[in-house]
Amino acid sequence: MTIYEEKLKKIKNNEEWVGILGLGYVGLPLAVTFALQGVNVLGFEKSQEKVRKIEKAENYIGDVTDQDLKEIVNSGKFSATTDFSRIADCDAILICVPTPLDRFKNPEMKYIEAACKEIGKYMKKGTFICLESTTYPTTTESYMLPIIEKESGMKHKDDFWLAFSPERVDPGNEKYKTENTPKVFGALSEEGKQIGVEIYQKAIKSLCTVSSPRVAEMVKILENTYRLVNISLINELALLCGKMEIDIWEVIEAAKTKPYGFQPFYPGPGIGGHCIPLDPFYLEHIAKKYDFNISMIHAAGYIDLLMPHRMTIKITSALNRQKKPINGSTIFFLGVAYKPNINDERESPALKIMDIVANKGGIVQYHDPFIPHVVTEEGNKYLSSSINDMEKADCVVITTNHSCFDEQEILKKSRLIVDLRNVIKTKNDKVYKL
Amino acid sequence: MTIYEEKLKKIKNNEEWVGILGLGYVGLPLAVTFALQGVNVLGFEKSQEKVRKIEKAENYIGDVTDQDLKEIVNSGKFSATTDFSRIADCDAILICVPTPLDRFKNPEMKYIEAACKEIGKYMKKGTFICLESTTYPTTTESYMLPIIEKESGMKHKDDFWLAFSPERVDPGNEKYKTENTPKVFGALSEEGKQIGVEIYQKAIKSLCTVSSPRVAEMVKILENTYRLVNISLINELALLCGKMEIDIWEVIEAAKTKPYGFQPFYPGPGIGGHCIPLDPFYLEHIAKKYDFNISMIHAAGYIDLLMPHRMTIKITSALNRQKKPINGSTIFFLGVAYKPNINDERESPALKIMDIVANKGGIVQYHDPFIPHVVTEEGNKYLSSSINDMEKADCVVITTNHSCFDEQEILKKSRLIVDLRNVIKTKNDKVYKL
Repeated sequence: MTIYEEKLKKIKNNEEWVGILGLGYVGLPLAVTFALQGVNVLGFEKSQEKVRKIEKAENYIGDVTDQDLKEIVNSGKFSATTDFSRIADCDAILICVPTPLDRFKNPEMKYIEAACKEIGKYMKKGTFICLESTTYPTTTESYMLPIIEKESGMKHKDDFWLAFSPERVDPGNEKYKTENTPKVFGALSEEGKQIGVEIYQKAIKSLCTVSSPRVAEMVKILENTYRLVNISLINELALLCGKMEIDIWEVIEAAKTKPYGFQPFYPGPGIGGHCIPLDPFYLEHIAKKYDFNISMIHAAGYIDLLMPHRMTIKITSALNRQKKPINGSTIFFLGVAYKPNINDERESPALKIMDIVANKGGIVQYHDPFIPHVVTEEGNKYLSSSINDMEKADCVVITTNHSCFDEQEILKKSRLIVDLRNVIKTKNDKVYKL
Repeated sequence: MTIYEEKLKKIKNNEEWVGILGLGYVGLPLAVTFALQGVNVLGFEKSQEKVRKIEKAENYIGDVTDQDLKEIVNSGKFSATTDFSRIADCDAILICVPTPLDRFKNPEMKYIEAACKEIGKYMKKGTFICLESTTYPTTTESYMLPIIEKESGMKHKDDFWLAFSPERVDPGNEKYKTENTPKVFGALSEEGKQIGVEIYQKAIKSLCTVSSPRVAEMVKILENTYRLVNISLINELALLCGKMEIDIWEVIEAAKTKPYGFQPFYPGPGIGGHCIPLDPFYLEHIAKKYDFNISMIHAAGYIDLLMPHRMTIKITSALNRQKKPINGSTIFFLGVAYKPNINDERESPALKIMDIVANKGGIVQYHDPFIPHVVTEEGNKYLSSSINDMEKADCVVITTNHSCFDEQEILKKSRLIVDLRNVIKTKNDKVYKL
């Protein structure tokens, strides 16, 4: 039996071990999804704290239910470790590490690099490796493959198989979770494809196999670039509409009545989260290698980066009508999460506006029922205030539209409102809308 | 009874006359839709030829059925005239004139201007006027209103009412026609809104009333800007994918499996038709008045304008592999309509590529079953050749994906294929794809 046939047999007998490298908002739900289907899952994580939590079945990711985590930890189907030498025990390694940008908006590849080195150091022959992190096309074959081959001394196709399958996690999405979101998958070889399909189809209801990792890499970037470009477009049109005294929210509602060829996007103070504001810059990065300027991403990226500054101008204008400057005024931010009803403030435009306002001498306060404290990029630390503190603020800025925010309560308790999320539907002279 | 009450009563008694100004691809289907519902419709048209055709119930618009036209012409519900003084006989005037761009991509307002002057000259008191042509926000109130008031000597609200309701015609769309496509409508006054709603709801199943004409104007521009931006984005990514040896068509098919937050657009040789390539420039035009640069439209517009040139480079590269230059080679274009299965070549990128190729010394031929002859922007005239002439051409360029084009026939009869529409799905060395 070849090493490939052996591996396939092991998977078909449900004897394989799946290692998941990185137990964050992608890795933990993926681990839980596999383990719930009876697959043996071993999670690898640098953070001692996360591993300790999993040992005690303490959930720390919103998209995972406490009950599911308890079930699989208690049954022994899922455990976690900081000991990366145990990669040697795994038949498959799925990599779910962060792919952020550095301060100069260049791809930060150090997590993928570290993952590849750990895998190369410890894996046995016959390991299937698949990257799930969003990255630029050609990463799998041109960046990962050489590192793994060098570290392991093994040869791709003979000794191990490499593939790419982008995560499509949408935090807080009640309908589409890991198991019922179709998954795109591209392997570097035919055998790797067969093994990957056999493994993934145990956990994922619908797989879409493409011809290569670079196609799969581009798929994910296309999806997120589409969102960046469309959010940036509507943000830019919102700014123009502000000048033209046109209610952009009314425009979008009416445009939505078109029954074909239109998908609505909504303006806001900027784009947050760990995907949309970052991923397109990965494509810009690799495009340079091909002497190619992606003008649409360039334009969209700059609109996005400038939105917090534009929003500060809106706050300044609102205060100015009440003959107040930002300097010395109390500005109260409602919501700092990057989207409604989640507890994640990564890349949130609210934090950026808070920094700008603080730099201008504004006294910054915030309230977010999901996020008790924040540290901004500039290192300012804030604790979530009581929502009643709105009453004393010179200006309330609605930066996140959590469902629990009550329009009438906000209207009643605040002196001046800058509504960047269309929360206030009632006409009122003290409300300034994006 | 006020003039307003009189008008409402007349409409409710089905005694009103609706005048439709301009009987092109928007006005004729609109006229037919009203007349089929029993409304008296009088069409105004400068072209003697079109009026003569309508008198004989000869249909000249693809979205209108011959039978419908016959029915309403024979019943007397619909007639057409070149005599604009008969505007005096109408209770409502719906304006469906072209809004093109001039050679410098600035709005060409002369058709709207002429319509307003004719209306102002002839209308009686109590006329309801509604523009359907796509234009920049504020056109209705800031451009049309002063002309009409000046020409007529009448006063808006007292003597006539003005509104804007954008056409949403999608030529060739089998499912959504004039009557079942929801219609956005914004009037300049409350009475104008009531009258407009009473009239339009006789013909249109679903009306979406917005607060002002400028909101309605922006709705239409948003819809078409959304399309321009997304087609330009996918065109730009297609060019990058070409350099990276990634099949963009495969990428889009896989991205489509994402069940939320994605709408597919497809690349092509450029954007054609009378809406998508033009309308966003109307917004750019008015934005200048507000010192505002719409960077997304700017970027998208230039990608679009450059696509025919980029496509010529693809043709050059394909020929070059066979050691042929464009100069002296026969280039055969399959399809010149701007989208599949229609007989409209306005703004079609195929014609632009034909001009570029001809300028480089290429011998240009084309075949399009829907379009027997064309005149390009540069004045080159061509007759549609037999599809069998493909066999003699040095290169066949697929510029429109008419459903009747047969992949196997094209593969068999051509020596070299540049497929800009993903018609050829079979792998073949003589095929170069966008």
